[in-house]
Amino acid sequence: MSNHRHRPDDRYAPPIYIPERHLNNLRQASNLAIDIGGSLAKLAYFSNVHGRRRTLSQDGLSDAEFGNLQDEEFRRSRLHFVKFETKHITSLTHYIKDCLGDDADQVAGRTIRVTGGGAYKYTDLFEKVLGLTIIKEDEMACLIKGSNFLLNNIPNEAFSFKKNGNPEITFQKTGCEFPYLLVNIGSGVSILKVYSDEKSERVGGTAMGGGTFWGLGSLLTSAQGFDELLALAEKGESSSVDLLVKDIYGGSYEAMGLPGDLIASSFGKAARSRIAGPAREQIHDADIAKSLLHLISNGIGQIAYLHANLYNCERIIFGGFFIRGKKATMHTISYAINYWSKGKVQALFLRHEGYLGAVGAYMKGAESQDVVPGNNYGENFAFSDSFEVNEVMSKALEFLELDRLDLPLVKFPLIEGLDYQADLIDLALDTDARHYWLDIFQDGLERFCKVIRDGESNRNHIDRRIAFFKKKFLECLALLRKNPFAYGVLTVRTLLDCREQFLAEFDFYDPYIKFKQEENTATLAELPARLEYIHSLPWEERQTELIRGILGGNIFDWGSSAVVKINESKQINFKEACDIVQGRPWFVDHLEHWVKRLKRAPVQKMMIFVDNSGADIVLGIIPFVEEMLRMGSEVVLAANSRPALNDITSHELRLLLTQVLPLSPVISQAHHSDTLRVVENGLGSPCLDLSRVSQHIADECLDCDLVVIEGMGRTIHTNFHSKFKKESLKLAVIKNKWLCDKFNCPMFAAVCKYEVPDSLYNDD
Amino acid sequence: MSNHRHRPDDRYAPPIYIPERHLNNLRQASNLAIDIGGSLAKLAYFSNVHGRRRTLSQDGLSDAEFGNLQDEEFRRSRLHFVKFETKHITSLTHYIKDCLGDDADQVAGRTIRVTGGGAYKYTDLFEKVLGLTIIKEDEMACLIKGSNFLLNNIPNEAFSFKKNGNPEITFQKTGCEFPYLLVNIGSGVSILKVYSDEKSERVGGTAMGGGTFWGLGSLLTSAQGFDELLALAEKGESSSVDLLVKDIYGGSYEAMGLPGDLIASSFGKAARSRIAGPAREQIHDADIAKSLLHLISNGIGQIAYLHANLYNCERIIFGGFFIRGKKATMHTISYAINYWSKGKVQALFLRHEGYLGAVGAYMKGAESQDVVPGNNYGENFAFSDSFEVNEVMSKALEFLELDRLDLPLVKFPLIEGLDYQADLIDLALDTDARHYWLDIFQDGLERFCKVIRDGESNRNHIDRRIAFFKKKFLECLALLRKNPFAYGVLTVRTLLDCREQFLAEFDFYDPYIKFKQEENTATLAELPARLEYIHSLPWEERQTELIRGILGGNIFDWGSSAVVKINESKQINFKEACDIVQGRPWFVDHLEHWVKRLKRAPVQKMMIFVDNSGADIVLGIIPFVEEMLRMGSEVVLAANSRPALNDITSHELRLLLTQVLPLSPVISQAHHSDTLRVVENGLGSPCLDLSRVSQHIADECLDCDLVVIEGMGRTIHTNFHSKFKKESLKLAVIKNKWLCDKFNCPMFAAVCKYEVPDSLYNDD
Repeated sequence: MSNHRHRPDDRYAPPIYIPERHLNNLRQASNLAIDIGGSLAKLAYFSNVHGRRRTLSQDGLSDAEFGNLQDEEFRRSRLHFVKFETKHITSLTHYIKDCLGDDADQVAGRTIRVTGGGAYKYTDLFEKVLGLTIIKEDEMACLIKGSNFLLNNIPNEAFSFKKNGNPEITFQKTGCEFPYLLVNIGSGVSILKVYSDEKSERVGGTAMGGGTFWGLGSLLTSAQGFDELLALAEKGESSSVDLLVKDIYGGSYEAMGLPGDLIASSFGKAARSRIAGPAREQIHDADIAKSLLHLISNGIGQIAYLHANLYNCERIIFGGFFIRGKKATMHTISYAINYWSKGKVQALFLRHEGYLGAVGAYMKGAESQDVVPGNNYGENFAFSDSFEVNEVMSKALEFLELDRLDLPLVKFPLIEGLDYQADLIDLALDTDARHYWLDIFQDGLERFCKVIRDGESNRNHIDRRIAFFKKKFLECLALLRKNPFAYGVLTVRTLLDCREQFLAEFDFYDPYIKFKQEENTATLAELPARLEYIHSLPWEERQTELIRGILGGNIFDWGSSAVVKINESKQINFKEACDIVQGRPWFVDHLEHWVKRLKRAPVQKMMIFVDNSGADIVLGIIPFVEEMLRMGSEVVLAANSRPALNDITSHELRLLLTQVLPLSPVISQAHHSDTLRVVENGLGSPCLDLSRVSQHIADECLDCDLVVIEGMGRTIHTNFHSKFKKESLKLAVIKNKWLCDKFNCPMFAAVCKYEVPDSLYNDD
Repeated sequence: MSNHRHRPDDRYAPPIYIPERHLNNLRQASNLAIDIGGSLAKLAYFSNVHGRRRTLSQDGLSDAEFGNLQDEEFRRSRLHFVKFETKHITSLTHYIKDCLGDDADQVAGRTIRVTGGGAYKYTDLFEKVLGLTIIKEDEMACLIKGSNFLLNNIPNEAFSFKKNGNPEITFQKTGCEFPYLLVNIGSGVSILKVYSDEKSERVGGTAMGGGTFWGLGSLLTSAQGFDELLALAEKGESSSVDLLVKDIYGGSYEAMGLPGDLIASSFGKAARSRIAGPAREQIHDADIAKSLLHLISNGIGQIAYLHANLYNCERIIFGGFFIRGKKATMHTISYAINYWSKGKVQALFLRHEGYLGAVGAYMKGAESQDVVPGNNYGENFAFSDSFEVNEVMSKALEFLELDRLDLPLVKFPLIEGLDYQADLIDLALDTDARHYWLDIFQDGLERFCKVIRDGESNRNHIDRRIAFFKKKFLECLALLRKNPFAYGVLTVRTLLDCREQFLAEFDFYDPYIKFKQEENTATLAELPARLEYIHSLPWEERQTELIRGILGGNIFDWGSSAVVKINESKQINFKEACDIVQGRPWFVDHLEHWVKRLKRAPVQKMMIFVDNSGADIVLGIIPFVEEMLRMGSEVVLAANSRPALNDITSHELRLLLTQVLPLSPVISQAHHSDTLRVVENGLGSPCLDLSRVSQHIADECLDCDLVVIEGMGRTIHTNFHSKFKKESLKLAVIKNKWLCDKFNCPMFAAVCKYEVPDSLYNDD
């Protein structure tokens, strides 16, 4: 903490180039933990990252403006995980000592939780050098705790692997589904059944593990290391060593359903006495390595499958040194599980599998201090190393950083079906789409940076920060172009979120705040006239105009380059915006159904996921809300917790509403009687991933009859195909060329999608 | 067949010394089958063995004697199995061809069923050389059929193995209990679930099998053969290669319940990069072999256990080349199953495991000809090679021969409980007892042979036959002294049965027949006086005298050396015999309970397992039967099907009864009204193994209220502890020094054991 205070200018030095900088946070680290494996060790600690931001304040509120911009200090809580080779542990321990400082008072009472096979070996070192109290944590318990934590907190943490598949990697959409089997393949293998966050047990294991592969590989081949042996295996052809079914039966063994190419006996052809077998000198190391890999992987796969079957688990998560994201091992293990289970059991792997033990050990410490971490962490892409299959540890240190979110996130309860998928398109699957969208983000970066630079209120080091942001984001785009799996699922949503996260890292916390304030102020002035016009219309025409208004308001979107371009040439007003929207019939036009439904009965309670500031919320949503309230509905407005582009935040929306109250008696009354409420959704994204929303949202939605979602990010890029357990109304204007091509619709095509779940169709 | 007729003098040449003699039966073989494995092949065929015997005939019956001795030809059906090394298959095929003869008519229509991995390789050879029609049989189906057949027909076929246990080998008492898992470990492993004689399925398998052991062993050690590798393994110490739990954790891993000595990672210490690991040249071949054996055995054991668990089997029968009765493999597999299942699943092995495929293939042929073999075969100890653990194939040919029994045998339905054990003492467990009884049989052999020689009616080659019998039986005793497991369970019963079987092989079919006839004739003369005396007694005294009479009659036992000695010095009469029996209270004296029970109500139906000819049956049992009939009981007399010592056979008993009819109106009337019947028990033993009795017995006993068993062989050596579902009365005189010492009772102590099962105790 004091470190930052004393050297404020260093704050924007690019941390990625001097990774040791991260470790500076160690000075104020709490809850140290370390997982020491035979090859790799992982340090875990917690720190607070300090920053400055400008927000709207209620202080000194005047009629003319609905909030003052004020600077404030804030801190973000962060979990740090650092991976390094175990051989550097002594020097790293001394480095940690330097970071922690010599002050006996500071060190006193601090503890370090130690786990992993090396825990036993290095306790002396930690005790002597660090002077910290050592607490040994059970290895398996840590693995399970770490696995549950990562699955709960990191979207797309788990994935399945299919060699030469399109895609090779398929991320799991959902979080932690119990029960699952956790199979840790280190030197040996432990098989753990995880029933819940609280309950698990070791159900089995085998001594045939990674140590067997590398041990036998050492005796049988000239490979100098585990990874060299794996690489050898990938080049080998095991049929010169393995006895196949066809070698015995001349073909397949049909009575038993065994195909001819199936291995009947691993290494069966290598037997000395077998006449048909080759001499040792004729057998290639690569073939032996391949046969060995098959033997071990098939064996472990079969034993894991049998346990899954015996313990009723449909998912097996494999981890440990043997796997380490290696294609060859993931392939053979996945193949074995698929073969044995006939496709019924799924082999899964974790992006951050290497960190399980360290995460778990850290969590143990947090628990002991009653700081039980909930599901309120998120992956920090800016400081975490990306995920790559066949990754080798090319740097001295690798990092995973998790930011504490404001609110714990849970799945939106009204989602229908088990396989919710937020995103319209998976950019890992569609290469053309991937390059199109990466280009869009890359090509628009200059203009984007200009807007940011103009909007940002914190002018400190502004050009340096912009430059770092640009460089880092370009690197990220380049990485994703090469490896679309680097941060899990790659979609327009994740690209938008990634950009927001990178901005925040360089203290661009809310660069649109000034624009948003100006737009809200300007459109509030137009609201009385708009309301008056609405009120003048007959009932049915009014309902139509309200929807048209929402669509027109949705044109004002800083995220759309089409809109930004129009605005650059000429500032358009709300009326013009409404006219830009496609004429009826719209691209998706359920307007008549919607009006008919409203005519039948008012909605009892609805939740509206709002989008942009300005015309969108003020002239589009507010009049619609007023009408619904007038008809007797209870209305919940769900807004972002954190800023993202010109999206209105829940904080801003609450301030805005106080400005609206004098203009609408209906809204005023609803506000006072609490039938109109604002809740924060826990997110900071222009899109809406309903697999992770705030508990407030989850609680409020339960008795809603209707879910309204508004805006392109929330209803087109995400949730276009989402089904709900209650009625839903999706409203958006398509403002992107690529989407128009995909849907074969004109620019500014309108979507008014009103849906009733099958279960509710009992009349009409 | 003609072969024997033309060369009658050759019949008594000792077949064991010229094993090829067996193959002569091939001339009239039907249903040839062959199982060809990578190393060993097994031929199976069926033949009829012809013999001559003297029996009692009803022809020309006079009042003075109740049967004429007549010679008759008879044939015994026999299944032959011949094991030889596959490398000799070509020459053996030509030898078979020579045996079958050139006669096209004889060969035409004959088939050979072929199974095993080599079936595919050698069909050409069989077709060309033998000119037989080849029928390929599915390998796994044959294994299952063979396994079921052997389990059903061979007592003590299955056994469990415990290294350094006392005993190391424990035979299964019961036959084939479904379901079980059959795990065949050849080059690879097949796991089959056997539901019943008719239903089975392949539930799994693994490519990690014997081929993997020997394949990897070939690459890693200098062992020149599979057995050499196994021998190496037995000398090795795997902890120099395997990573143990204590190597990682410094001790046991208590949180997970893993002991320190548990292997954590097979070959984990052999890894090249591991600092603590030894260099290759420091690792002994033996240690590698041991580690390899553990790896494979533990892996297979675990996979087998998991399948047993998943498919609800409590028994796993392991077979295949990998096992072959090798201590090292049986130990590691048993250890693994016990470890994984925590003792709940049993690893079993088969004495004749190597013959499964050949037996099964033969059975397939028998089935196709509607000669479905039932459970009516028995192991021929005289011609079958004995079972030895760690056996090596030391002879060019090895044999298993199974004799067809007269009747199919089933378990006696009135046995209470699941773990029926016929025998009083297991001579494999008790070394002193083993040597005592082996001595008894050995020391008594001269006297026994003299009795046999005197009694035998067939004088053809009498001295040569006696000499061969004596030689062969002494060899058998010597073998059993060294290896008590040679023929399954070793007990007094099996020794007695073995001797009977050896006698029969040298055409001593019923050497006691003359004595039995003389004794029956003599005692029949005493019967009227005995009956008159019995009739004169008051009711209660009469019941006592009847039991005393059975005990007195039981003194006349040619199987007891104590009795033989008394008889040699002075011929005793029935009255003297009754006086020799211990005075009351007897060693086991339930007489009062028995009389009280009879007083309450007559027995509705009883089954009496009778013992000896002469005084025993005529003066002991007959008066008792008459009394029971008079009281209103239905009486079934269960007698041996085949001769054994001076035991009365069912055939003889039927003839005897016709002599009794004029002497007892009660018996005469019961005989005519069928309330007195004789049934044959399917056996030819002085003991009584109720796990295998004739279907007649099983049917008749179902509605019996009482089971009476008589004689030392049937109630002391066997069934002393047997519990029944109905009332039982066991009557015997202990006429053996060793038994007296064991029970701490005097010579000629009496046993009158009347028992009522707990379930029937509802009053008194």
